[in-house]
Amino acid sequence: MADKQKPARPKARIPRGFRDRFGAEIARERDMLARITAVYESFGFDPLETPAFEYTDALGKFLPDVDRPNQGVFSLQDDDEQWMSLRYDLTAPLARHVAENYDALPKPFRRYAVGPVWRNEKPGPGRFRQFTQCDADTVGAPAPHADVECVVMLSEALEAAGLARGAFQIRLNDRNALTGLLETLGLADDVNAQKRLGVMRAMDKLDRLGEAGVAALLGPGRKDESGDYTEGAKLADAGIARVMAFMKATAATNAETCARLSDVVGGSQAGARGVETLAAMAMQLKASGLDEARAKIDLSVIRGLEYYTGPVFEAELLSAVTDEKGRPVRVGSVASGGRYDGLVERFKGVEVPAVGISIGVSRLLAALELKGEIAGPEKGPVVILALENDQMADYQKMAAELRAAGLRAEVYVGASGMKAQLKYADKRNAPVAVIVGGDERAKGEVTIKDLARGAELSKDISDNTAWREGKPAQASVNRAQMAAEVRKIVGA
Amino acid sequence: MADKQKPARPKARIPRGFRDRFGAEIARERDMLARITAVYESFGFDPLETPAFEYTDALGKFLPDVDRPNQGVFSLQDDDEQWMSLRYDLTAPLARHVAENYDALPKPFRRYAVGPVWRNEKPGPGRFRQFTQCDADTVGAPAPHADVECVVMLSEALEAAGLARGAFQIRLNDRNALTGLLETLGLADDVNAQKRLGVMRAMDKLDRLGEAGVAALLGPGRKDESGDYTEGAKLADAGIARVMAFMKATAATNAETCARLSDVVGGSQAGARGVETLAAMAMQLKASGLDEARAKIDLSVIRGLEYYTGPVFEAELLSAVTDEKGRPVRVGSVASGGRYDGLVERFKGVEVPAVGISIGVSRLLAALELKGEIAGPEKGPVVILALENDQMADYQKMAAELRAAGLRAEVYVGASGMKAQLKYADKRNAPVAVIVGGDERAKGEVTIKDLARGAELSKDISDNTAWREGKPAQASVNRAQMAAEVRKIVGA
Repeated sequence: MADKQKPARPKARIPRGFRDRFGAEIARERDMLARITAVYESFGFDPLETPAFEYTDALGKFLPDVDRPNQGVFSLQDDDEQWMSLRYDLTAPLARHVAENYDALPKPFRRYAVGPVWRNEKPGPGRFRQFTQCDADTVGAPAPHADVECVVMLSEALEAAGLARGAFQIRLNDRNALTGLLETLGLADDVNAQKRLGVMRAMDKLDRLGEAGVAALLGPGRKDESGDYTEGAKLADAGIARVMAFMKATAATNAETCARLSDVVGGSQAGARGVETLAAMAMQLKASGLDEARAKIDLSVIRGLEYYTGPVFEAELLSAVTDEKGRPVRVGSVASGGRYDGLVERFKGVEVPAVGISIGVSRLLAALELKGEIAGPEKGPVVILALENDQMADYQKMAAELRAAGLRAEVYVGASGMKAQLKYADKRNAPVAVIVGGDERAKGEVTIKDLARGAELSKDISDNTAWREGKPAQASVNRAQMAAEVRKIVGA
Repeated sequence: MADKQKPARPKARIPRGFRDRFGAEIARERDMLARITAVYESFGFDPLETPAFEYTDALGKFLPDVDRPNQGVFSLQDDDEQWMSLRYDLTAPLARHVAENYDALPKPFRRYAVGPVWRNEKPGPGRFRQFTQCDADTVGAPAPHADVECVVMLSEALEAAGLARGAFQIRLNDRNALTGLLETLGLADDVNAQKRLGVMRAMDKLDRLGEAGVAALLGPGRKDESGDYTEGAKLADAGIARVMAFMKATAATNAETCARLSDVVGGSQAGARGVETLAAMAMQLKASGLDEARAKIDLSVIRGLEYYTGPVFEAELLSAVTDEKGRPVRVGSVASGGRYDGLVERFKGVEVPAVGISIGVSRLLAALELKGEIAGPEKGPVVILALENDQMADYQKMAAELRAAGLRAEVYVGASGMKAQLKYADKRNAPVAVIVGGDERAKGEVTIKDLARGAELSKDISDNTAWREGKPAQASVNRAQMAAEVRKIVGA
């Protein structure tokens, strides 16, 4: 019937910026998420699952100001004309959930969430428009106790995920310390919003530009190697010196950092509060076993300070990561978090304190793979060849026996001959093929082919005929011994 | 600053037809999915994860014929003008994946998939626009071996999910048997498409209308109790008799059913093929231990026959399910599957045989809950009250001790007093609250409050003062004994 019309065939293609994932990659992520969320649960957090969609106006950052809002989010209009968007993180849906169910929820409200989020952005290498987030948040608890708990939990979660203690460090800062700095610079009021942003952008470039470069950007401006000129924040020399002092206040011990920081920003109310919070956190973290090696105040942590309202934290890998060619790879932060007391305010009109963490699962998995700390692809199933059509029930019985012995096992269910079946077993990464033809059946035996060992041996073989006659890496055993023999090979 | 502008506050509300899920409900689904996918994996299936979006033209069923296609699916236009839709099942993305990667994939290709799907439909009670599917499919294997394997695996997966053997039955039919029936009725050609549909619709109503009602719908038509008249399929008496014979061919044994079915449709080529496939499946299923009690040919299974091209199967609960008021609840099928050889053809132009199963996880969970075979809400964490601000580090140490003993535990991190903290513990369903104030600390003790026991005892108490003074269900123990004592209560 299809021949009569012959419609144009659609081209099978995955949408731009998305990806399929298969097998071991999924298993590894699932395993990592299970270990992380077990830590979250042990700390008393319960899972919350919100739908993929939120009303666009409830997402906040991305209000529809044009006919079809698609700045950063995927949006569409429902039957009743309301705009809906796919969530771009797990925090905005949390805010909506808390505001919608405020009276019924226990306070503090502690939830974790795992799931995909979507970004309507230009895709690039390694940058996908759908990826997994894994968050835990406490809503309704003021600083610093819940913040300390977040840092401790993040540390334990990263260890559970596979990072050795000492392989990463959590770096702390506090938004109020920065606000204090800006206040002492006389930039706290609204008219200086642009200048404030310029100062923060300059500070965030210490890594790349060094002190002189940052100082130039804080002052008149800077010309880079290509000759391009970037306008500066136009601070006076005293202001520049103060910002540099702020950034250089990071010392070997948290106590010393707090002392130095107090000298720079303690004169402002916000600054004093920032110092106080950081000092309290450092003390409690130390009491929980997190000294500077594991959790260190680092005033160069600027990213996120625009978004958060109090303490911020970032987990960075310490040991160098190299790619398959031995070149160093900059992983960046594998997790971050902080306090955002304005979260629910948009809906409720009252400030609700909140603090949370988010683990970049994909990035963490990639780093662990590069460090060689995650096992290679998982073994495929044992494949039982299907050589005689009337013996399928018996083959299936053998597969059931192997499964009962704790092995993955399947009977070949395609329509091809023995050679193709062995090729299939190889392609599935099967450790073993089990072969029962008429000969084996007559003797009550099965032939067990160790495929990994066979592949290894075949590297040293040039004579194909001799190879086939020698039948290496395969043996016939009594049918009753099958499961035990296969286990020996797969377990090895 | 927010006061200066006072923008209108958005209303916090979840989009229409979606739902939030929390705590135990998520844990139960996750647990069920883990047990089902462990069975899929043991049968040699590997996980595949495709993105939420597919190009609308690749989804097939729902081509955009208007400006914004939203018939049944959620669709939007990408930057490059291409229409994308959220997947409405896990099978269409599988077809796209197989067609896109055909040469690289092992054949047969065996994958399972778990994840949300979206339907842009009018929401109703218990009908949501996002729900979870859990599928396993074999692509590239002809009937009946892969089909038999699917039925066996489905049976094991449902048992792993918590259904007792004997509590459900898998019912089989074959699309070719029906095609055979339609051929012997002379309805196989295109001009009779409408009449064919009428016959199938009438057959699908046997449950509700009984034999006389179905016979009327197959013939001239039927007037229902309200007086509404439904046009019939206008079959002659011999035709009606043949359809009724088809539906009544279901016998106590699969062998007898096949014999009867052969009498009715064996004269047509498709019919003979259907009988042959069902007979072969029944024989192999019996050899795998699935007799009629577990897998039975049932020719009244009509649903799905329009979609599938060969064998179809449905898992039905056998034992009655009643709601909380003891009223019987019709659960319907909790899983279904079948063969759809046209799956990849749309893309490749060649027929690729495929067969798969899909478990309705939400429906299965709901049924198990109604049957009381799933545990109630999980226990909350042990809550350690935070009574003295300067003791937070010590409280956190206690929580860490409890976690090290395998318990969920948290320190209260909110800003309220003791009474509110105990209320919080109740709301979190905490089994135990641990209390350390100045008195306890001086004596090196902790007070352990058994909240469940306390709630039970309080039912018999009317005198509040006596109650408070009696301090039932709480005891002070040495700090070193804390974890062991709490374990005793939580373990009980």
